Amino acid sequence: MGFFKLREQDPAGDAKSLDETLDALGYNSDGLVPAIAQQYDSGEVVMMAWMNRAAIEETLETGRVCYWSRSRQAYWRKGESSGQIQKLIEMRFDCDGDALLLKVDQTGPACHTGRRSCFYHKVVIDSEPLINPEELYK
Amino acid sequence: MGFFKLREQDPAGDAKSLDETLDALGYNSDGLVPAIAQQYDSGEVVMMAWMNRAAIEETLETGRVCYWSRSRQAYWRKGESSGQIQKLIEMRFDCDGDALLLKVDQTGPACHTGRRSCFYHKVVIDSEPLINPEELYK
Repeated sequence: MGFFKLREQDPAGDAKSLDETLDALGYNSDGLVPAIAQQYDSGEVVMMAWMNRAAIEETLETGRVCYWSRSRQAYWRKGESSGQIQKLIEMRFDCDGDALLLKVDQTGPACHTGRRSCFYHKVVIDSEPLINPEELYK
Repeated sequence: MGFFKLREQDPAGDAKSLDETLDALGYNSDGLVPAIAQQYDSGEVVMMAWMNRAAIEETLETGRVCYWSRSRQAYWRKGESSGQIQKLIEMRFDCDGDALLLKVDQTGPACHTGRRSCFYHKVVIDSEPLINPEELYK
């Protein structure tokens, strides 16, 4: 049985070493796991990107979030060109160790388009019913 | 230039058809995109899972979140065995169309371990300094 499966039964407060935990993460075939960045105080989800093990370690060591850019195939120290850095407040892993949740303090916009959050495409309903369907099919 | 890149310049309120938007999502080689589920009122991120296009469409049609289970290779209508359903409040896509944010109303625990959130593994510091390092290296 895997590390995270075994951990399901451990009591709150129980700890394993960071090394052992990072070894057990469910990296994909490119060695990456998805990481969700959430503003720590407002709760706003500002972006999702990817990390490899070294990016996770650097983020914990420096307290500044470092991703792996799949398009550039390079480390991506958030804010290194824009100044819009992400300070790490808290790092969490999910139940089966294949996703990360980063509580961050985001300076300015997180999105490369200048928006606070990358999630600015919303599915909306754009018309109202002309008639109540219960009337229509009574 | 891709659909989402072109959309960066469109003004707030501008709309494209759902079909066109779903066609343009950045599905991975298995036809999946990661979907973050966030409790709509508290802001708590409760889980991350995966969706294919049909799961996205079903979720929008029924208002109940349906994922694609990679381990079972089957549709996963959240709560179908546990009763812990996720009602969809809002669906969002990110700037480059390769991640979804679902605002949901989660009944009970989202996690298969019985916890509210899947993100219950937290990285913590477990000791205090014996001496201020500025004292140590003055």
